[in-house]
Amino acid sequence: MTTAASKQRAQVNPGTAGADARGTIFREVSPEQQAVEQQLVDHVVASFEACEDPRLKELMVALVKHLHSFIREVRLTEEEWGTAIDFLTKAGHITDDVRQEFILLSDTLGASMQTINVNNAAYADATEATVFGPFFVEDSPAIDNGGDMAFEAPGEPCWVEGTVTDTDGNRLAGARIEVWEADETGLYDVQYDAGKRAARAHLFTEADGSYRFWGLTPTPYPIPNDGPVGRMLDAVGRSPLRASHLHFMVSHEGARTLVTHIFPEGDPIGWKDTVFGVKQSLIKRFEPQAAGTPTPDGRVIDGTWSRVRFDIVLAPAGV
Amino acid sequence: MTTAASKQRAQVNPGTAGADARGTIFREVSPEQQAVEQQLVDHVVASFEACEDPRLKELMVALVKHLHSFIREVRLTEEEWGTAIDFLTKAGHITDDVRQEFILLSDTLGASMQTINVNNAAYADATEATVFGPFFVEDSPAIDNGGDMAFEAPGEPCWVEGTVTDTDGNRLAGARIEVWEADETGLYDVQYDAGKRAARAHLFTEADGSYRFWGLTPTPYPIPNDGPVGRMLDAVGRSPLRASHLHFMVSHEGARTLVTHIFPEGDPIGWKDTVFGVKQSLIKRFEPQAAGTPTPDGRVIDGTWSRVRFDIVLAPAGV
Ligand SMILES: [Fe+2]
Ligand SMILES: [Fe+2]
Repeated sequence: MTTAASKQRAQVNPGTAGADARGTIFREVSPEQQAVEQQLVDHVVASFEACEDPRLKELMVALVKHLHSFIREVRLTEEEWGTAIDFLTKAGHITDDVRQEFILLSDTLGASMQTINVNNAAYADATEATVFGPFFVEDSPAIDNGGDMAFEAPGEPCWVEGTVTDTDGNRLAGARIEVWEADETGLYDVQYDAGKRAARAHLFTEADGSYRFWGLTPTPYPIPNDGPVGRMLDAVGRSPLRASHLHFMVSHEGARTLVTHIFPEGDPIGWKDTVFGVKQSLIKRFEPQAAGTPTPDGRVIDGTWSRVRFDIVLAPAGV
Repeated sequence: MTTAASKQRAQVNPGTAGADARGTIFREVSPEQQAVEQQLVDHVVASFEACEDPRLKELMVALVKHLHSFIREVRLTEEEWGTAIDFLTKAGHITDDVRQEFILLSDTLGASMQTINVNNAAYADATEATVFGPFFVEDSPAIDNGGDMAFEAPGEPCWVEGTVTDTDGNRLAGARIEVWEADETGLYDVQYDAGKRAARAHLFTEADGSYRFWGLTPTPYPIPNDGPVGRMLDAVGRSPLRASHLHFMVSHEGARTLVTHIFPEGDPIGWKDTVFGVKQSLIKRFEPQAAGTPTPDGRVIDGTWSRVRFDIVLAPAGV
């Protein structure tokens, strides 16, 4: 036994236990058994002692503590452990350049949304953030204010207008607004044809901070559900449907970039959104317009349309 | 908004927070922000309400609570979240029929060993269990007592002997003993030739519960470390080496099947075993034997050899 090994052995024999580092007591487990389990946690934590990156060390130690607390609390069986390994393996094998099952897993467990929360703390009356989703692409077409981002994607036309301001109420000119959404069949352009661009665009606010464009009234769509995440949702009795939404990403120099959606009031999915993206402040009234109702810009529409106002407030950068 | 959705909205607006379900306070985070984060946890937990399998529901709820507590405690950044998704993706892509990166991940975080602990509680003086590892195969060759399980795998010969008893001290006749180990180059047979069988065998105890066989003196070997788990170990300053060991799986009707190893006393890796499999009770003295020392069975060996005694005690089935 080397000196280092002897030292490590001393570290992993604390000789007491009965509770983990967070004070959790596993009441149905004997003190001797709890000591064996806690000693292992301590040993694994100690194995990261030499890590030279303090943040990486913090992350690994916290991960180990929660992973072991989970196993101990639920008294995970060896068969359940095997099911988890099999789930991760299948998720890895279905993941490729255009399908990301681990992001779906993170989304459906609310982990993506919690990460957004942690990194986008409420600041004054700044607009709230929500999940980014897997369907943004870098090369959206540019449109002018009043232009149509649908590019012939099927769906009911929707007039979207609003302003971009900072949290002091100053109008922000030239803010870049990226917008993207699914068509009424539930598909994004990247899902039906990798080369095609439709129902996505970018535009810039006017000198007075205002913007306006034609899009589509949002409709619900399922996340890809033919893989292990879809089978998990099915096994627990959850729907794969997302609440109807229209994606926004808004950026301006000196401001915290905002990634968010707006959600139509009265949506049939709404708070049951399978990725937990809905926030009360992001639910907007999409006013239904009867066929023949004159549009703001004199466009002639053969049928119904809708309109919504979304005034966007950006937090300062670095908050 | 449907009735069900309205009900769910009520559930996710508890209106108070500041601590998670385990009482953890995130002291540097404002009460308002904590409320937003806790509301999301409650919402995700509520999404499993309709799960008809109570055990699956218990597992998913506990998983969600620990996952969210981890993200909130470490204040996970969006970049770190992306690194985690990338890690899992790469682990999935390197995993195939003969390489299982998710098991390596579980092993190196101590999760495999903790699962073994949870399912193999100490019982009287029953021999302790340790990790199964990825190298067991079903179709090991049979050998008689006193036979050689090395089948020409390179390494120093080692005479292994002992008894199998129950926890009342009764000798168990006909207990099945599977043994397997790496050769002195650090490889298992399945790693150098999928068809070849070497350094693995099974045998049965005699009428008096005794067993004996020739194997190899165990030597350290690295877990496969050319993938994301190897890069993780490298980043945190950990070695990929396993403590030297000889695998056993021992079964007998009416007894709890024992999966374990024995570890040589004084091993250079020892407690630093990268999968945390070492237990004090499983460290055995492998007695070095000088060249020319007569063997127990009159075998003529051209060089040194070693010998070890391992008396195995099986717990009753179902404990
Ligand atoms: Fe979307
Ligand atoms: Fe092994």
